[in-house]
Amino acid sequence: MITEQNDSNGKHEYSLSSQERNGLYKAIFSRRDVRSHFLEGKDIPNDILTRILNAAHHAPSVGFSQPWNFVLIKDRATRQKVKESFEKEFQKSVLLLKDDKSRQQKYTSLKLEGIMESALNICVSYDPTRFGPFVLGKTSMPETGTYSVCCAIQNLWLAARAEGIGVGWVSILSNEDLKKILLIPPHVNPIAYLCLGYVTEFADKPDLEKANWLPRLKLDEVIHYENWEHIHEKGCWSDFSNTVRATEEP
Amino acid sequence: MITEQNDSNGKHEYSLSSQERNGLYKAIFSRRDVRSHFLEGKDIPNDILTRILNAAHHAPSVGFSQPWNFVLIKDRATRQKVKESFEKEFQKSVLLLKDDKSRQQKYTSLKLEGIMESALNICVSYDPTRFGPFVLGKTSMPETGTYSVCCAIQNLWLAARAEGIGVGWVSILSNEDLKKILLIPPHVNPIAYLCLGYVTEFADKPDLEKANWLPRLKLDEVIHYENWEHIHEKGCWSDFSNTVRATEEP
Repeated sequence: MITEQNDSNGKHEYSLSSQERNGLYKAIFSRRDVRSHFLEGKDIPNDILTRILNAAHHAPSVGFSQPWNFVLIKDRATRQKVKESFEKEFQKSVLLLKDDKSRQQKYTSLKLEGIMESALNICVSYDPTRFGPFVLGKTSMPETGTYSVCCAIQNLWLAARAEGIGVGWVSILSNEDLKKILLIPPHVNPIAYLCLGYVTEFADKPDLEKANWLPRLKLDEVIHYENWEHIHEKGCWSDFSNTVRATEEP
Repeated sequence: MITEQNDSNGKHEYSLSSQERNGLYKAIFSRRDVRSHFLEGKDIPNDILTRILNAAHHAPSVGFSQPWNFVLIKDRATRQKVKESFEKEFQKSVLLLKDDKSRQQKYTSLKLEGIMESALNICVSYDPTRFGPFVLGKTSMPETGTYSVCCAIQNLWLAARAEGIGVGWVSILSNEDLKKILLIPPHVNPIAYLCLGYVTEFADKPDLEKANWLPRLKLDEVIHYENWEHIHEKGCWSDFSNTVRATEEP
């Protein structure tokens, strides 16, 4: 899939052209969590789905443990059961806003999943026993196994975006329900339930930003210098922090 | 950073050219966890570091909560303390292999971090209180907040790769040490400690694959059809599973 090139020293070519680099940034900045814009009835071709899954499979993983599995779901009866889990969990979440009626009303007006309308659902799961018990790099921080699976999900999401395919991550679900519906063994943990399909459009901004649910933070609000307590550094970082503050939305 | 284009209907342009798409795949497949090949003494320019962090900041996040922070570290005394935490945790991990001397020997021969040699260290952390307590999509699965931070890390890693900058994720560390060294408040959780810098090369395969530590799984070993128990589906998935089995390493 990559055209490999060797430079004059026979070394593996490692630079991306400006157009290739721009392609990565375009995928990153125009990726959306899709719920509303699935194009019904258009399947994802086998070669494209394979490319997307292969991108996920080439994520970083702690100790090269590759601890992910992908359950691909088209069956409508299975999806209907997942949708029922969503409905049940959604009703629970609505109650949490009972003392904030205006927020509750806004929340219930949002479209939060595309389980039935999308072409394909994928449950991405984590197997903590993969290549264990000694997994290099996981001994001090066992949670890094889960982190690897999340990196795979982001690769999948970006590859799908590059192929013109939308992805929506549905997290208003019960993991116990998912395990029962998909026959997932006890030691394996579902991490994400994704809905994939071609879309009529990728919105110019995230749905929740457009709906004024929450604002985009400024980049400089999430950067610290040398330690947590330095938010605006005057020392060797001052030129950099000026660059960050001048950054506009892509 | 993205050149926005509108099609004849005035809609936001959403397709990537084949070269742009190829750029994304090139970044994904040639990204490495870098420990050995840092080029010492070459700083990351401000505009490039800003682009990389902005890519991270445009990751998906549950309920648009953007729960990440980035602590940028150049100070050598701080890094030395982190390196000491690595040494301590590494020694503990070596003992776990005391009954498997050949694996222990291989493990201790590997280069596992580039804390001092890299141009910059970044601690990426998760703030579970961001925009809380009600975070949309986090009510049934609170762990999705952490997952968002991991997606940001993968964006950062790919953007760095596209800029010719290597990233190494050091997980043989104590989170308690990190919190003390970087003055991170009790409610915030470090997720990743990353080492960034220009490199002499990106290896053609992951270090741990090259060292025969573990093999790359075949893609079809991690795919299930309709539910966990179907690994080789004969039904509507049979053409697809043939495509997957024919997939070669990129």
